[in-house]
Amino acid sequence: MILSPIEIITRKRNGEKLTEAEIQFIIDGYTRGDIPDYQISALLMAIYFQGMDAEETAALVRLMRDSGVVLDLSDIPGPKVDKHSTGGVGDKVSLVLAPLVAACGVINPMISGRSLAHTGGTLDKLESIPGFNTQLDLDAFRRVLHELGVCLIGQTAEICPADKKLYALRDATATVESIPLICGSILSKKLAEGLDALVLDVKCGSGAIFADPAYSVKLAEALVATATEFGLPTVALLTQMEQPLGRGIGTWLETAEAIRMLKGEAEADFEEVTLTLSAYMVWLGKLTATLDEARERVTEKLRSGEAFALFRKLVQVQGGDVRYLDSPESYPTAEHRFEIRATTDGYVHRCHARTLGQVAMLLGAGRQKKEDGIDYLAGIEVLKKVGDRVQAGDTLAVLYRGTGPIPQELIDRATSAFAIAAEPCQPLPTLLGIVDEKGLRRWM
Amino acid sequence: MILSPIEIITRKRNGEKLTEAEIQFIIDGYTRGDIPDYQISALLMAIYFQGMDAEETAALVRLMRDSGVVLDLSDIPGPKVDKHSTGGVGDKVSLVLAPLVAACGVINPMISGRSLAHTGGTLDKLESIPGFNTQLDLDAFRRVLHELGVCLIGQTAEICPADKKLYALRDATATVESIPLICGSILSKKLAEGLDALVLDVKCGSGAIFADPAYSVKLAEALVATATEFGLPTVALLTQMEQPLGRGIGTWLETAEAIRMLKGEAEADFEEVTLTLSAYMVWLGKLTATLDEARERVTEKLRSGEAFALFRKLVQVQGGDVRYLDSPESYPTAEHRFEIRATTDGYVHRCHARTLGQVAMLLGAGRQKKEDGIDYLAGIEVLKKVGDRVQAGDTLAVLYRGTGPIPQELIDRATSAFAIAAEPCQPLPTLLGIVDEKGLRRWM
Repeated sequence: MILSPIEIITRKRNGEKLTEAEIQFIIDGYTRGDIPDYQISALLMAIYFQGMDAEETAALVRLMRDSGVVLDLSDIPGPKVDKHSTGGVGDKVSLVLAPLVAACGVINPMISGRSLAHTGGTLDKLESIPGFNTQLDLDAFRRVLHELGVCLIGQTAEICPADKKLYALRDATATVESIPLICGSILSKKLAEGLDALVLDVKCGSGAIFADPAYSVKLAEALVATATEFGLPTVALLTQMEQPLGRGIGTWLETAEAIRMLKGEAEADFEEVTLTLSAYMVWLGKLTATLDEARERVTEKLRSGEAFALFRKLVQVQGGDVRYLDSPESYPTAEHRFEIRATTDGYVHRCHARTLGQVAMLLGAGRQKKEDGIDYLAGIEVLKKVGDRVQAGDTLAVLYRGTGPIPQELIDRATSAFAIAAEPCQPLPTLLGIVDEKGLRRWM
Repeated sequence: MILSPIEIITRKRNGEKLTEAEIQFIIDGYTRGDIPDYQISALLMAIYFQGMDAEETAALVRLMRDSGVVLDLSDIPGPKVDKHSTGGVGDKVSLVLAPLVAACGVINPMISGRSLAHTGGTLDKLESIPGFNTQLDLDAFRRVLHELGVCLIGQTAEICPADKKLYALRDATATVESIPLICGSILSKKLAEGLDALVLDVKCGSGAIFADPAYSVKLAEALVATATEFGLPTVALLTQMEQPLGRGIGTWLETAEAIRMLKGEAEADFEEVTLTLSAYMVWLGKLTATLDEARERVTEKLRSGEAFALFRKLVQVQGGDVRYLDSPESYPTAEHRFEIRATTDGYVHRCHARTLGQVAMLLGAGRQKKEDGIDYLAGIEVLKKVGDRVQAGDTLAVLYRGTGPIPQELIDRATSAFAIAAEPCQPLPTLLGIVDEKGLRRWM
């Protein structure tokens, strides 16, 4: 059988089902570099429009996983559990959750990604700590995992090389928002980690991958169904992403906020999401008999400072400069800043996560194309959220940019993210629902 | 206004209308090399699915045209008229038509393209003549045009550089079949040629860009409407492409067949299309009072050998080895050949142009990706067409390949292009309709 990339693109474009051999030809050919980026991006856009069925999706996940090595961590005692977020604005949960669950006895072999479209990436945030090395090889990864119960790295050359290339390409080609492609990317990596259980954070609202919450539910269902088919116990939490999570958007701003939580000072929504996801990990890892006990355990480990101590050790082991953990105020500050202020009294009715995420990306906190660098100082601090009362002149948000003056266009866009009206407005709920192998269990 | 490629791709993907500024940002950025292939191919696929309206299409045509120089040929006496085909299988018309209309007094500044998907490209066919240089600069182009009334080149760096890049990219990404992209590609080049009139050959049937003839009609209407908006008198002929045109498919096979027609020996369908298109060019160029007179004029110039003499001069001036025009039989022959034979008596009911075009491409006559080279000896000779009576054992077609043995897969695919049944079958009509500025005038 002679396979041609153009014919495969054409078939998917025309809405036909791809065979496993065709998916393999694409994944192997792209991983090896035989098929160029520009053909794959056209195929990705065709998949965006035409989708993939459950069989194609499972084949994609399996072939992406098998593009590299699959870890066997059975020599490390303890339950191997990881968390993955579908990506949001201001979502710095992993930076706290990873050391927190490790402090509870979970082995957390977290392999993270980079910024994607308007959402941030854990690797970029970690690398805002000078010296932090996310590119450990697998031997070093195992060693750190054995020692600390947690290690935070990016995909290595060995693990899911197919996803490493596809992830960057999707980010730069507006092909992120595709359920089969998201399943392929997330589950190939997670299945390669040798896990006993998986907790997913599927964001809902304007800043989520899908702005329409109905698609977030579909995504959660597809992720849990596909993971279950591979025999991996998986729960997906549906969480609020109509407005940014917590206060900071941008690499260092988010890292600094995570450090603050580890030291005992946190925004309520950020803490709620972090503790809930962490509790599910501890419970699915069978370290406690009930979810409530798990919640108590993670809360105690956060309050006691054990999670911070473990994070500090981890940063040190991975080469990061811990002085910035001990004294975050010594980090450089962005040369350019602009305060967006309320022009009227009232209540915040809108604090639009996607708009703020896009502005943060354009300020330099994310990438417009995959070759772009990151401005670690760039981003936004969000000081008022939906439901907050404000007075004219109050600062709603502060924009930061390290590489040049802040363009008026971005100020205008960030301003448009907020709406203030005279009548009071309820704060947004943080947790929205849960999907497990039996389907959508609760929708709050 | 800060424009981002990802946001523009996203907007088109979501079905929004692009602004002129956005289209300009894309065309200029891609032409300069600031926007990479992989983002453009994703945008092209989004345009494939979401389309462009008349205003976006006109902006695309204008901005692509203005990516380079627009010729002013007013110093060369005579009407400047060109022909463009939407691409077919075995469509070698330009090689005969160009010298033929020039012999009638038309100035034909033909800027051609390369093979696209399963269809051949005039440039690749010309380059099968050793030494033939399609990359003349504009000064040389003008000089040859002045001297001979015709010159056959590819896009220069100066003319439509945007189209040069987009054309190759669309070919390799299954984004050829899009009415606005086809309008952009064809009309930007033709409007840059400084023409007085334009004749289009819009192919209909399995081997056409659109397999569905209804889309070919839509394409002809969009092309004529857009060209008319730019003030260029334009007529589109709808011609048969359910089966290949003439006998040869492949670069040298088609060039040799064109030489045979210029020497007085031609397949009926190939000659009919060539003479009709040529007559329209002479008539629109106002060299005759009626279309019938134009038809007589071109027929006479073909029969008299003047067109061949002019083609021979042209090949010589453009550096080609005219020995292969004088003795085509001295051209190298493909090392590998395979005859597809009828296994039953009956009539040919199907001779599927697209299948044969794809096989010819995979044999090496076209490109699977834009970096690929061409095997000038590769291709197919089609000996039986729809309506022909055959006996078991008769050769239906011969496959040729210069670069290695012919894979069984391609033999099977080529065989599947033919269907033979006991009952007689009408030959296919060659000319199907005409679209001019008043719309579809005839549908034969």
